[in-house]
This record gives sequence, C-alpha cells and structure tokens, in this order.
Amino acid sequence: MTMPTYDVCGIGNAIVDVLSHEDDAFLARHGMTKGTMALIGSDDADRLYGDMGPGVECSGGSAANTIAGIASLGGKAAFIGKVRDDQLGAVFRHDITALGVHFPTPAAQRGPSTARCLIHVTSDAERTMNTYLGACVDLCPADVDADVVRASQVTYLEGYLWDREEAKAAFIRAAQQAHDAGREVSLSLSDPFCVDRHRNSFLELVENHVDILFANEHEILSLYQVDNFDEALQHVRGHCKVAALTRSAKGSVVISGNEIHIVDAEPGVTVVDTTGAGDAYAAGFLFGYTNGHRDDLAHCARLGGICSAEVIGHFGGRPEVSLKDAVANKLG
Amino acid sequence: MTMPTYDVCGIGNAIVDVLSHEDDAFLARHGMTKGTMALIGSDDADRLYGDMGPGVECSGGSAANTIAGIASLGGKAAFIGKVRDDQLGAVFRHDITALGVHFPTPAAQRGPSTARCLIHVTSDAERTMNTYLGACVDLCPADVDADVVRASQVTYLEGYLWDREEAKAAFIRAAQQAHDAGREVSLSLSDPFCVDRHRNSFLELVENHVDILFANEHEILSLYQVDNFDEALQHVRGHCKVAALTRSAKGSVVISGNEIHIVDAEPGVTVVDTTGAGDAYAAGFLFGYTNGHRDDLAHCARLGGICSAEVIGHFGGRPEVSLKDAVANKLG
Repeated sequence: MTMPTYDVCGIGNAIVDVLSHEDDAFLARHGMTKGTMALIGSDDADRLYGDMGPGVECSGGSAANTIAGIASLGGKAAFIGKVRDDQLGAVFRHDITALGVHFPTPAAQRGPSTARCLIHVTSDAERTMNTYLGACVDLCPADVDADVVRASQVTYLEGYLWDREEAKAAFIRAAQQAHDAGREVSLSLSDPFCVDRHRNSFLELVENHVDILFANEHEILSLYQVDNFDEALQHVRGHCKVAALTRSAKGSVVISGNEIHIVDAEPGVTVVDTTGAGDAYAAGFLFGYTNGHRDDLAHCARLGGICSAEVIGHFGGRPEVSLKDAVANKLG
Repeated sequence: MTMPTYDVCGIGNAIVDVLSHEDDAFLARHGMTKGTMALIGSDDADRLYGDMGPGVECSGGSAANTIAGIASLGGKAAFIGKVRDDQLGAVFRHDITALGVHFPTPAAQRGPSTARCLIHVTSDAERTMNTYLGACVDLCPADVDADVVRASQVTYLEGYLWDREEAKAAFIRAAQQAHDAGREVSLSLSDPFCVDRHRNSFLELVENHVDILFANEHEILSLYQVDNFDEALQHVRGHCKVAALTRSAKGSVVISGNEIHIVDAEPGVTVVDTTGAGDAYAAGFLFGYTNGHRDDLAHCARLGGICSAEVIGHFGGRPEVSLKDAVANKLG
C-alpha cells in the first residue's frame, strides 16, 4: 500500500447555502419540520426563495463542509461533487479550492443549475433546510476519481447521496475502490428523514461497507427504529468498526468494539446557528483519526467537539476562522 | 405637493459583496490601502478572487445597504440601480425586495455580469474593498424613475456613482427632479479616494444640490483638504442644510446652521467587521429624519449610531436582525 496523498476524500452534494432568519410561523406556513432537510423541485425552490427574507450565501453541502473543515484544520483533503458552470458553481469551486482542497469533478455544462439549500434559522438557533439538488443529480459513477479514492486514508460519504440511484451507484463504487486499496470508508447518516427513506439499504451498508459511522441521536434512533439512545447503542455496537454518535449539548459517544468514550460538549458556547454542526464534528474527528490519533478515539471526539463549537457560534455552516487556530486555542 | 409614497429613494451601485477574512500581508501583497475602496476590472477581479480565501456572499452596495436598513427599520423605501439578469443579480433583487423595497430598475440582458465587491476583513475588523462594477456601468439617466424620485421625501445618492459620467448624469437628473418636486437630496461622500478623484465636482454639488450630507472624518478632511476635524467643521457649516459627520468610535457630529450636536457612539459594541457602518448610520439618520424627527437631529444621529452598532457587530454589511427591534431594545 502506497502512502496516502489525502487524509480524507469526501463525496457529496455540491451545494450553495442561502441562509435567512425566520420565525416559527414561517416554518408552519410552509409545512416544514424543524431541524430536518426536505428535497424540493425547481419551482418550489423559486417559490420558497421568493417568500423568505434576505439571505446570506455560503458554500455548503454536508460532506463538502466536512472536507472544508479538514482543510481548515491543516489536513489534506479532496472532494467529489457536481456543480453547473454558473456563478454559484464558481462560488462553490472557489470556496473549496481556496482552502487547498483537491476538487477534480468537472462542472456540468448543461442541465440544472448549481444546487441550493434554503436554510431557515429560527431564534432557537435551529436550522431547517430545503434543498434543490440541481446539478447534483448529474453526479455519476464516472465522476468518482478512482486514483483520488485509492490515495485517501478515508473516503467519506454523506447519506444524502442515497436519494438518487446514480449517486448511490457512485457511492458503492467508491466504497469498493477504497476497500480494495486497503483504505477505510466512513458514512454520515445525514438526516432522520433520509434514514427513514432508505433504512434497509443503510442497515446493509453499515453492516457490510462502513468502517466509521457518524450519526446524531435522531438518526441512530431512526436507523434502528428504537425509542432511546441506550437501545440504539446496543444495536450499533459491533455493526461497524467505529461509531461516533453526536448528541448536541450532551456531547458525543464513540463506540469501537468493547471500547466506549463519552465526551462532553465544549463549554461556554453561545449557539447562534446549528447549520453544519455535525459536519464540523466529523471534520475534527476524521482529522484526528487520520493524523496520528487513530488509537485515541476520545481525542478524535474532542477535536470534533471543538470544531462543532466554532461553527455553531456564528451564522453559516462553514468555519469562519481557521479551525487549526481554534484547536490550538483550546488544546494549547 | 402630494403625500410622499416613500421615505427615501436610494440611487447607487447594485453590488453583491464577497467577504473573506485576510491578514495584513494579503493587503500588502496586493498593494491595497486598508479601509478604502478601489475599482478593478474584470480580469483583476478574477485574479484577486482566485487568490482570496473562502467567501461569504451578501447583497451590498452603499446606498442599497442604506435603503435595506431603512426598510429593516420599518420605513418605506425604493432603490434604483443596475444588475445583470444572472444568478448574483437575482440574489441582489431577492434580498432588497424581500425587505419590501420597491426596486423598479430592470436587469440588463446583456453586457457585464452583476457587480461584485471583494471585501477583505482583517483581524482589526477593518474592511478593504475592491469593486468590479460590472452591470452598474449600464445605469443611465433613463433608469431614474422620475415618479419614484418625486414620491420620495429624500433622494439619497452615493458618491461612488460619481466615478462614471452616465451615472453622474443620472445622479444630477434625480437631484433636479427631487428639488423640482419640493423634496430633499442627500449625498454620502462614500470614500476618501472617491472624494479625491472628484473634489471640485463634489464641492460644487454640496454647495448647490445637497440638503443632507453624510461623510466620515477621512472624507470630510479630503473634501476640504484640511488636517483636522475642527477645520473641516468650520468649512462645512452653512454649505448644506444638514451635515452628519461620523467619527467611528467617537460617534457622530451633526451640524445644521447654528445648531450642532455631538452624539456618542453606542457603548458595549464588539466590532467584528466595519463593512456597512456608514451605510447603516445613514439609514438610521434618514429614517428618523423622514419619520417625524426632522426637528430633532440629535435623535436622528442616535438612531444612526444604533443601526451602525448592529451592523459592525457581525460579519457582513447588512443588518442580521430587524433594525426596528434593535432600536426598540435600545430606546425601549
């Protein structure tokens, strides 16, 4: 096995976020379930955008946010995802490559525009998302650059990809390439509704293809259709090599075989916007895991918590400051 | 004179800001003067964008920010400015109309893309700007909707428009229409370099066409080519009906004939990013002026200070919360 070129290669939806502050009545009027992600078509996206308040645009996408976080920590990262050759696609490409991320996927030259995620942040700092997938629907197995996957210690996949057959095929292909090259595969369950839509398929995946699983409490309960966290914990043990389960203000729990770590959330954080919290946690965890702390999962979880704390302290899902500096400030 | 439909009509460049955090070495490497605005061409904009860090996109533009602020205060406002019919143009239009602002200017269907302002925020919270004017260069006198100008208590113009002959013509035309209808005209000097480029023309304008002048300390010193604020004060007295001069942490000074008010800055503000500080001050001031406080200029200045304090407390040049709520919190 050759030396890996990248710590992590992420495969996910290439999305530009449009964030606005809204109240609970807005969510109710549009029939949204707070804290979740719904997929919407082009017309619905236009209608919803027309009804929402002034926005702020930032590059987003779950796996892309994680990859941006790893780069911000000083890690070596690559990203595979599809934009259109339009202005928002150029914004997405700029933002991820400006961090030093290798982003080999060519932009689509026809078809739907670059994906947008309309994110409504309520005064409780919770985010509710509606995604128009746009050009993401053109991601196909041929976009998975096998050389990049083979050259990455971990290939990280977001569950959201599971919503499309072509992307799912790209996903499985990448997992096989990674394992054939002796690398590891990581998955984030992304969203409880997403888990609900694809439960059997995710269960099969977690059991057979995933080395490192990320999920929050809602997602892991949904995966195993159980009512409490402890029950979910007993199910996930032994189903994949490592499971890192985030619990918002309660911190995170990491399980690996008989090993278990309960790591508290960083104290003293004023939560402004939870957008990207889970993505930043995965960034910190995977950076630690691929940079000498594979045998210290509690340290990986602590790094995840520090990165997550930075991102939830401001509006928008990507880090505002260097995560490398944020970690240095906390750990000295 | 009929009842005005709008408190304020703003005429200015329609710009989408792209903000990034950079260090002083970045400014030095690109030969930038901290705290100022420079105009750049399309190629330079692409080159600079390629070299800057990950960005956040927000609608901007000096007069447009002021108009957004007036709407956020609950005022009735209109805006005249030129975007292209592209994705960033749609972002600009969405953000200003979502606030209830009347924005009658049609998008250009050909020519350069929507204007972008690349804004670099350094760790001292100062912003340094490079503007690619793009579609703004297509703003012409025909775009000035005379009905809107006549129906506005105050027509507000940004000095940045002075950089182009066509826009300057639009500017003068709007000022004449306003005065012919018995309304008032307000001007912001925008930037010390902008004043330097057009000093004689600005002096003539201030003397003959402007009722309410906004300037910061650097700009008013540049206008009169003097070294200290007190000297500038003696020059500006009597040259226009009202002059509102902002002095950063020292608050603001308002002069009108023999009347003078010195209003302290709002206390307890942690400055994150000064982008839009002057624009927000003008918003608060003009909202007060056009909503029953014309005879209480100190109150107008206080409103300006409160709005400015909201905007400098976060990243980005437009208010993040309702300015109406921000004012209610301060004034009870």
